[in-house]
Amino acid sequence: MNSEEFRQRGKEMVDYIADYLDTIEERRVTPAIEPGYLRRLVPDEAPQKPEQWEDIMKDVEDKIMPGVTHWQHPRFHAYFPAGDSYPSLLGEMLGNGLGCIGFSWAASPACTELETIVLDWLGKMVGLPEQFLSFSENSKGGGVIQGSASECVFVSMLAARAHTIRQLKKQHPFVEEGVLLSKMMAYCSKEAHSCVEKAAMMAFVKLRILEPDENQSLRGATLQQVMQEDRAMGLVPFYVETTLGTTSCCSFDNLAEIGPVCEEFGAWLHVDGAYAGSSFICPELRGPMRGIEYASSFNFNPNKFMLTHFDCSLMWVRDRFKLTQALVVDPLYLQHSYSEKSIDYRHWGIPLSRRFRALKIWFVVRSFGIEGLQKYIRDHCRLARRFEAHVRKEPRFEVASPVHLGLVCFRLRGTNDINQKLLSSINASGKLHMVPASLNDKYVIRFCVCRQTATEEDIDYAWEVIRQFATDVQETKPEIIENYSQDPRSPRKTGRTG
Amino acid sequence: MNSEEFRQRGKEMVDYIADYLDTIEERRVTPAIEPGYLRRLVPDEAPQKPEQWEDIMKDVEDKIMPGVTHWQHPRFHAYFPAGDSYPSLLGEMLGNGLGCIGFSWAASPACTELETIVLDWLGKMVGLPEQFLSFSENSKGGGVIQGSASECVFVSMLAARAHTIRQLKKQHPFVEEGVLLSKMMAYCSKEAHSCVEKAAMMAFVKLRILEPDENQSLRGATLQQVMQEDRAMGLVPFYVETTLGTTSCCSFDNLAEIGPVCEEFGAWLHVDGAYAGSSFICPELRGPMRGIEYASSFNFNPNKFMLTHFDCSLMWVRDRFKLTQALVVDPLYLQHSYSEKSIDYRHWGIPLSRRFRALKIWFVVRSFGIEGLQKYIRDHCRLARRFEAHVRKEPRFEVASPVHLGLVCFRLRGTNDINQKLLSSINASGKLHMVPASLNDKYVIRFCVCRQTATEEDIDYAWEVIRQFATDVQETKPEIIENYSQDPRSPRKTGRTG
Repeated sequence: MNSEEFRQRGKEMVDYIADYLDTIEERRVTPAIEPGYLRRLVPDEAPQKPEQWEDIMKDVEDKIMPGVTHWQHPRFHAYFPAGDSYPSLLGEMLGNGLGCIGFSWAASPACTELETIVLDWLGKMVGLPEQFLSFSENSKGGGVIQGSASECVFVSMLAARAHTIRQLKKQHPFVEEGVLLSKMMAYCSKEAHSCVEKAAMMAFVKLRILEPDENQSLRGATLQQVMQEDRAMGLVPFYVETTLGTTSCCSFDNLAEIGPVCEEFGAWLHVDGAYAGSSFICPELRGPMRGIEYASSFNFNPNKFMLTHFDCSLMWVRDRFKLTQALVVDPLYLQHSYSEKSIDYRHWGIPLSRRFRALKIWFVVRSFGIEGLQKYIRDHCRLARRFEAHVRKEPRFEVASPVHLGLVCFRLRGTNDINQKLLSSINASGKLHMVPASLNDKYVIRFCVCRQTATEEDIDYAWEVIRQFATDVQETKPEIIENYSQDPRSPRKTGRTG
Repeated sequence: MNSEEFRQRGKEMVDYIADYLDTIEERRVTPAIEPGYLRRLVPDEAPQKPEQWEDIMKDVEDKIMPGVTHWQHPRFHAYFPAGDSYPSLLGEMLGNGLGCIGFSWAASPACTELETIVLDWLGKMVGLPEQFLSFSENSKGGGVIQGSASECVFVSMLAARAHTIRQLKKQHPFVEEGVLLSKMMAYCSKEAHSCVEKAAMMAFVKLRILEPDENQSLRGATLQQVMQEDRAMGLVPFYVETTLGTTSCCSFDNLAEIGPVCEEFGAWLHVDGAYAGSSFICPELRGPMRGIEYASSFNFNPNKFMLTHFDCSLMWVRDRFKLTQALVVDPLYLQHSYSEKSIDYRHWGIPLSRRFRALKIWFVVRSFGIEGLQKYIRDHCRLARRFEAHVRKEPRFEVASPVHLGLVCFRLRGTNDINQKLLSSINASGKLHMVPASLNDKYVIRFCVCRQTATEEDIDYAWEVIRQFATDVQETKPEIIENYSQDPRSPRKTGRTG
């Protein structure tokens, strides 16, 4: 394909995407296919000769689209939003169009410098303390774009591990590092994302998973008690992961209590605000950030609640040297004369190569402005409260946890079984898509406001569907119940996208 | 921005990208700016109000472009190619347009299924043994898209670590895991990419870095000797990383010799073909794959030598259960009724969420066809040999290592110092961009054929520039030499993008 054909095909693709999003309601929100559907539709071997573009695009519509779950659909209320907006799309287009790789400052200076700048912009926008920003000459902090919250959690754990091992080796220079490692303890809440457990597994450190309070919030006293117990056993508490906006119910760990405990034990405090972090753009929503000044690192994902395409997880650290010391394998490697004066982001994360992801953030922030982003977030919060009001109006339902931001957890008063049947039947119908969670051993249904331009009508429509299915399920016949259990879209537990 | 404006701005962006690539020669290949240039051009704070699209795009041209290193420029001969083609760009556009997240089969079935299919296509295209493919019912193998070769190396090391720890725990059930870990040894060549050292650091395992032979190839006898030594010391050899197409000079470790040694010691053999892997699409270039049947895992990067945008590193494993056992934290998590019958790629890598990257590969392979990709690869090989012939014609130069694929390492006969000056002066001129490497303690200059549509004229032009600068440097005055050392674009050592 030469540039002339690209001009044509690219413009057709722009229209295809705009048409797709304009008419997305005409599609079923979840696909009605079974595993292996695509294998039967496409050849087993790659084609020997070039194929025509028309044939490829025909296959997109005929073969790919029937297997797509439409995350931007007005009836999609599962997980959390998959960030999406036209300026973000244009940023991705341009970044790919440039086709440069930003592993060091010298490899493409604009790629690195714009990243530092937008991370400072965003840090200020969400009210992070100055210590996390890089703009001041004397700051040891700074921000970086990672691919996912999972990576943020993992690299923060690596930084904490490296720092603690260095300290322990000073005290016990002749003890094998593997033995030192075996004494080190990390902590998180039961409501933390599974990526924390995965990070601990990858980092080969022990993780204690703690009980949150009745509102799914990890409290300082709980943490202090187990840390004291562990220290008394000769173990070394070194890392605490907290969440602002948990996956199950958007609960908030109590940073203001946990922070001083981490300080007392010299443990690294990481704060994962994957979903809720974007909401801190609104000053009135910053309450849960109280205590953030104790954090060693913080992340949130514009690819969830800030209209930016995945992958885009922003991470800030209070001491960038502690982070890079855990990831630099050879300080001379790829060095250039400006190494002292510039940031080489390859030392801030797992991969060497990096895409020009700062462009999409820059485009989104400038196109919407702070006020536009605030309006989007406040709209979602308002719509969630509208949904909550619907639930509360009807006595056979209950709201299962305090409502925060765009997420409402609700259930039919009754057994877990009937709620599972309700959700399975709704999902199987293709009329709405939601996923479940487990709160205090109760099966609850998560309703998340996801679509960028969600309206009151979308909320009212969803509630009407839920009410009807609830009535059906409550009056259901046995053979229908049996069918529900075969629904492919009923995960046991919720996972956030991150 | 609504869909109407997106239709306009998207089409303008298509033209902007096509214009950029059509006229890229008018730009300087490397930017002439200093660290911090962008901070002075953009505000310290994000805008409160939305900005006009015209203003944003004006800033792209005025502020971003002057800081971009143009990887698609005909004068760019640094690192390895950054994969780029119009079909790949269209695939990225569509994937982002759909805006779905593919962490499980159910989260967007097409996203998962197309990935499995194209990985089988590509596996066959490069001649991988059937054991790595997933199409057969009884196969335990399979392929996955990772973000970078660094991730492939790291997760393969994690899989090997988990497998070995399980085995050791059976033998020594009462020994602390940290102690078992401290006995485990990984191996790679001095010519392996730095990501191997980084992976070992992250995985907390010991790594022995071995001397390759005079052609920068790691040999079986070297490996066998150190593994025997280590075993005699009570250590446990568990992982060997080999490279097909090293960063410095595109050398190939000797798989046919190394494979049986790994088998003898029960060690996991990973083969990183980040750059060279794509060349195996051409049957006549598959010689270095001899022994691949011993590998436990293999990766190559279409985002280097197969015209596909970063990020796109393909990884195959012979036993997918060994891989996922190292990364699944909770087998019930996000489970759906089809978990048994479908692949959930979130268990195959570090992040949970995943982009729809299979689309761009599918578009590239279908648009070019196998024959089109073969032609592209053979053209680059032919152009590298043309460059090699230029070097050999002129007695003051020497070819520094056997020429493989699109890479030629050469130098002026003489000191390292004069070669460093030559490269610095060329890079500072902005007329060409190349990076150095160190081979047997000699400073060499790497010339890589990078541009998709590179021509004989591009090669001849580059050689003419090099010749002229060589003459200047050989006759140079002291004050010019001093300037060379201030060149920002002279890394000490080469890094591949990956």
